Amino acid sequence: MTRAVEGAPGLSETDRLEAFSDGVFAIAITLLILEVKVPHAGTEGGLARALAALWPSYLGYVISFVTLGIMWANHHAMFTYIRRTDRYFLLIHVFFLMCISFLPFPTAVLAEHLPEPDSRRVAVAFYSATLVVIALAYNAVWWYAVTGRRLLGRNADPDAVRTISRRYALGPISYLVSFALAFANVWASLSVHGILAVLYLLPEGKPPGGKPS
Amino acid sequence: MTRAVEGAPGLSETDRLEAFSDGVFAIAITLLILEVKVPHAGTEGGLARALAALWPSYLGYVISFVTLGIMWANHHAMFTYIRRTDRYFLLIHVFFLMCISFLPFPTAVLAEHLPEPDSRRVAVAFYSATLVVIALAYNAVWWYAVTGRRLLGRNADPDAVRTISRRYALGPISYLVSFALAFANVWASLSVHGILAVLYLLPEGKPPGGKPS
Amino acid sequence: MTRAVEGAPGLSETDRLEAFSDGVFAIAITLLILEVKVPHAGTEGGLARALAALWPSYLGYVISFVTLGIMWANHHAMFTYIRRTDRYFLLIHVFFLMCISFLPFPTAVLAEHLPEPDSRRVAVAFYSATLVVIALAYNAVWWYAVTGRRLLGRNADPDAVRTISRRYALGPISYLVSFALAFANVWASLSVHGILAVLYLLPEGKPPGGKPS
Amino acid sequence: MTRAVEGAPGLSETDRLEAFSDGVFAIAITLLILEVKVPHAGTEGGLARALAALWPSYLGYVISFVTLGIMWANHHAMFTYIRRTDRYFLLIHVFFLMCISFLPFPTAVLAEHLPEPDSRRVAVAFYSATLVVIALAYNAVWWYAVTGRRLLGRNADPDAVRTISRRYALGPISYLVSFALAFANVWASLSVHGILAVLYLLPEGKPPGGKPS
Repeated sequence: MTRAVEGAPGLSETDRLEAFSDGVFAIAITLLILEVKVPHAGTEGGLARALAALWPSYLGYVISFVTLGIMWANHHAMFTYIRRTDRYFLLIHVFFLMCISFLPFPTAVLAEHLPEPDSRRVAVAFYSATLVVIALAYNAVWWYAVTGRRLLGRNADPDAVRTISRRYALGPISYLVSFALAFANVWASLSVHGILAVLYLLPEGKPPGGKPS
Repeated sequence: MTRAVEGAPGLSETDRLEAFSDGVFAIAITLLILEVKVPHAGTEGGLARALAALWPSYLGYVISFVTLGIMWANHHAMFTYIRRTDRYFLLIHVFFLMCISFLPFPTAVLAEHLPEPDSRRVAVAFYSATLVVIALAYNAVWWYAVTGRRLLGRNADPDAVRTISRRYALGPISYLVSFALAFANVWASLSVHGILAVLYLLPEGKPPGGKPS
Repeated sequence: MTRAVEGAPGLSETDRLEAFSDGVFAIAITLLILEVKVPHAGTEGGLARALAALWPSYLGYVISFVTLGIMWANHHAMFTYIRRTDRYFLLIHVFFLMCISFLPFPTAVLAEHLPEPDSRRVAVAFYSATLVVIALAYNAVWWYAVTGRRLLGRNADPDAVRTISRRYALGPISYLVSFALAFANVWASLSVHGILAVLYLLPEGKPPGGKPS
Repeated sequence: MTRAVEGAPGLSETDRLEAFSDGVFAIAITLLILEVKVPHAGTEGGLARALAALWPSYLGYVISFVTLGIMWANHHAMFTYIRRTDRYFLLIHVFFLMCISFLPFPTAVLAEHLPEPDSRRVAVAFYSATLVVIALAYNAVWWYAVTGRRLLGRNADPDAVRTISRRYALGPISYLVSFALAFANVWASLSVHGILAVLYLLPEGKPPGGKPS
């Protein structure tokens, strides 16, 4: 177990880790639909109304799917810099994936309680808190890999790495804001998730007056 | 995050995207069976009758499985032309996969409500509407890739690309017809799904009087 | 869509099909556990007895897991001969995977009804009938590939191919026997599944008086 | 079926087996979250309290996820030594994967019964017993591969192999201790799982007075 690749003690290729992560991402993202519950025959008011009444489930599905999807795309990009793994990196990664695959649960809680005035704040706060932890775990994966350029490829551009570190660090902070907002206004809190998605969709900006990152 | 492959800013290989898509397809397609509910012991009329009474579940399972299976095979073929990805392509793809992995839900709604005269129209319309959106997302993926040959391989034959574009465009239109038919006759509407499957199974035809595409 | 690999019309590598099949196999096999239902708190007679009473679920889990596992291993071996795919092969494969991913359902029916004297025959017959169809689909995949050596690698040994064809053909016949036996004695019927598993575990035998196959 | 790779009878690459195993690991690990049940609207005492009351589910989720995650990482490392497969190895592997994918069930039993004084011992014992079997199956996979260096790569260091064999052998023994402890004190029994996780997290130690392994 001391050497992951014969002749290259402690280092191994990232292929199998990426494949395993993709598997967990793909499964977690696809399991989200299981939490949308089928309205049973004989629902009062008709099926069309019952399907419309499921909007909190659809909303939860879309937010969580897009969030995991963007995180997957970024994780994808991250591994264009990270070229090696070691024992601790694998284990931090397992922790990160444990957080990722937890997300269907707070999503289901959100869908169930969003229409309930009494419990919706707790549901949204719980959802945002989960994303704070996911974002911290995501940063931990990155920080471990880039500290002292531990697992970076030889050609990884130091400036690009620093820019990415700054961007990633915004994740936990934003979700913390979303968490705090949940107690004031759940819709404001959920909007933060939408805004974050749009921000990540935008191409990377140039710093004002500077050269492209 | 600006460069997906070191030295080739903004472009990366499609391998990991294809693997991730295959994962989502494979999971969504396999989850379909979870919606077929086991008849419990003590069902009146015996187990054989109870199993036979599940025909709407089997029908939904088969239609959705074949639809997703054909879509997977076409997606497979699509990536023999598409040789690169970029940030936006990944995100359109995430949207496409979000639609794909939604399908088990309308399938379950269809299975539950097909035997109900009051709600079957809505169930079939909802199912067809989902496929309209899936087909549009599928076309969006293709359109983004082929516009200006953005992500095509150098050898991709322009004629073949145009033929494929025309074929794909039939998808949303056909499902829209199926959606409209749902309000007139649910069986006519569902037949469109069957006919589409058969059409996609047929080898590509030659245009009358023309040479093979 | 007319050409799967650029420059090699109609033919493509089998990698992605194998990966997709592996995904469906892996998911179907892992979903089997979802049908083992947790005994709830306050079950009379204690948890130990309740866990023991779940033996039909464990039995169904083991038979289906081993059956799918062996089928996966054989599918694995099959693709050391099959080196290409075409459009029809993909579609036969989709049908085969549809049968594979159906198996968790009859397994759950079996687990639920095996302790019921009134319905166990139907449950076992339904289970065996599903395996007849799976085995036929499996043979269809193989037959399509080997007929006229359509999709075989150049080095595929004709004798080995013929031996495999004969072995595979035993599958549907054996499961048909199991199906018929279900109406006489469910345990005899289930034993056929166990015996088949052991037979497939044995190394390939030599024909009496002949040379090793 | 007699030859897995053309020209190399009975031997094949491990790629597809690793991918299949990764799939089963990824799915089993992700399905764990399905056992955490959403508190329904109108739960007395409020949602926050209801979410807190789910601690046994979270505990089961974390222990099982970390255990499977570490096992996956070790399995990963194992295949840097194992370079070939054969028919029996595939089948032992199927048995190993059958045990792995069983784990969500005892995890759900644990989560349901941990708060119940009457049934918690049985639940913890059942959980530990499952891990004894998983650890034995894991060792069986390794033993089969290393006996007579049957499936090892040519460069596999005999000393490293022996060290790994010793480490792996501790698994079943430790889980057996955990099983026995369950009848005395469930928390002591569960602690063994935590301690094992930490031990596997530590870097390999040097034997006192010896050189690094």
